[in-house]
This record gives sequence, C-alpha cells and structure tokens, in this order.
Amino acid sequence: MIILGIDPGYAIVGVGVIEYKNNHFKVIDCCAVTTPAGMPFNERLEVIFNGITDIISKFKPETLAIEKLFYNSNAKTVIDVSQARGVIILAAQLHGLSVYEYTPLQVKQSVVGYGRAEKKQVQEMTKLLLNLETVPKPDDVADALAMAICHAHSSGSLMAKMKA
Amino acid sequence: MIILGIDPGYAIVGVGVIEYKNNHFKVIDCCAVTTPAGMPFNERLEVIFNGITDIISKFKPETLAIEKLFYNSNAKTVIDVSQARGVIILAAQLHGLSVYEYTPLQVKQSVVGYGRAEKKQVQEMTKLLLNLETVPKPDDVADALAMAICHAHSSGSLMAKMKA
Repeated sequence: MIILGIDPGYAIVGVGVIEYKNNHFKVIDCCAVTTPAGMPFNERLEVIFNGITDIISKFKPETLAIEKLFYNSNAKTVIDVSQARGVIILAAQLHGLSVYEYTPLQVKQSVVGYGRAEKKQVQEMTKLLLNLETVPKPDDVADALAMAICHAHSSGSLMAKMKA
Repeated sequence: MIILGIDPGYAIVGVGVIEYKNNHFKVIDCCAVTTPAGMPFNERLEVIFNGITDIISKFKPETLAIEKLFYNSNAKTVIDVSQARGVIILAAQLHGLSVYEYTPLQVKQSVVGYGRAEKKQVQEMTKLLLNLETVPKPDDVADALAMAICHAHSSGSLMAKMKA
C-alpha cells in the first residue's frame, strides 16, 4: 500500500509518500510544495494543486492521509489553510485516491503511543520507524510522514474516512 | 465584460453570470451548484469543481467575483466553506480568469449605495438592475448576481484583486 501523507498549508505543504508492506515502511519520497509570500492567493492555489497532482501522477498512491482542521486552529490562517486543503483533497479525489483524515492527537497516539507526546518525540519515532538517518526538514515534511504512518497503523479505519 | 459572480458554499454554490456593456447589465445565466448532505466531502469538492468548470467553459467569463470570508463567519461551517471556495477559485485560475473578492459590506454599498442595507433591499435592487421579473431563488443565486454587479460597478478596482 502506497500512502500519501500531507501536512496542509499554503506557504509550505509537507508531503510524505511511503510504502507499507508486511508491517515494514519504506520512504518513497518526501518533500515540500512551497509558494512564495507575495504571490496572489489564486496563483498559490494553482501551484499547490499542480504540485500535488504531479506527486500523485509520479508515485500513484492509493490513499491520501491529511490532517483534520479545527475552528480553534490558528485564527489568522485557518481560512487560507482550508482553501489550500480543499485543492489538495480535490487533486487526490480527481485521481481516485481514498481520502482519510486524522487529528494531531490521533497521529501522536499512533506514532508514539501517547496522545500528549511532544513534537520532538513524534519526529524521533518517525525517524526510527522509517529508518531515516535524520529527522526530515522542515517540520511540515516530518509531520506529513507521521501522518502517513498513522494511516498505515490504523489500516484505513472506517472511522477516519472523510465524512460529509 | 462577462463576470462570474459566486456565493461560495459546499451544499449550495450560488452562481450568476452577467454581461456588463455600456453601463447595461444582461443576465447570461444564474443557477446553483448543489451537493447532497451525506455525500463524502471529497466527492462534494469534485462536484463543485466540475460544476464551476462547466459553467466557465460554457460562458467564458473573464472574471470571477467571489465573497471574501472572515474568521468570524459561521464557526461551524467556515472550514468547509473555505475548502469549497478554494476549489472554486482554482477552477477560475486554471481557466485564466482574474479573481476579485468583495465583502458583504462592499456588495451592499455597491448595489444599494448603503453598507447597512438589508438582504431584501439588496435583492430588490439586484432584480431592478438586472431587469428581472422576480428575485432569483434560492438566496445564494441572488447573492451571486449581486456579487457580479458589485464587480461591474467597481470596474475591477485593484483594491479588490485577490492578494497573497
């Protein structure tokens, strides 16, 4: 199973593509799709959509695992992050991926086994599980890989499938 | 100039396409793109994207005018409306439309000449300006037409052009 994990954003979209087979993980790709500050937002949405579409075309993941957003997220950015998240999900949907969403708590629980784990612990466990030499940078990329691990561990629990 | 006015949403997207020439308005099309409650949200995004894309392909507007969202909008729905708004703007961007956004205050000011005008007044003025026999239903469609009028009146003020 190839999983596309995404940490949504509009300046930096964290991307992690992993293969999960026989309880083993293999990192296929990890990167960030970025857009420059000062670029009109409509253009940023296009860059993000095209970037995610390219990654899907290249690695053919079956599944998108993406962070669930909440209204009490950062008030200044939640609208723009949501708009970017919309075009990311659209790119997955247009390519027939299943879409799952997980909360930060679920990711921590799944990767570290403890819902109140600190960011650093999640990153270290991500490194260990994926057999990486260092924690991927920026944080958005590490978060995207953790998201993909979370999906692999939950084995596509129906609970996490995107609802109406 | 052909303007696509949009009242963004995920259950009902209000759509108004008008032509503005020599200070005269002509309604080319008005309708709503709708998605059923209970449809997974990723599928709703696809229906909205395809619906708006079809309208753009058919009527070839040069410009999208869309309502600006604020964090103090409806807390329960602002994330999902933002996600839908993202794919609507993407559809416009992929077809080379210019994207402008206006606040409800700007629309009222522009259509009625008074920023605190009531919804009913905006709808009546929209009907009058567009030479319609009745106020279009549902409200989302009337709002979309008012949005398009607002853009025509502001003649694409640079102030309203979508920022970073």
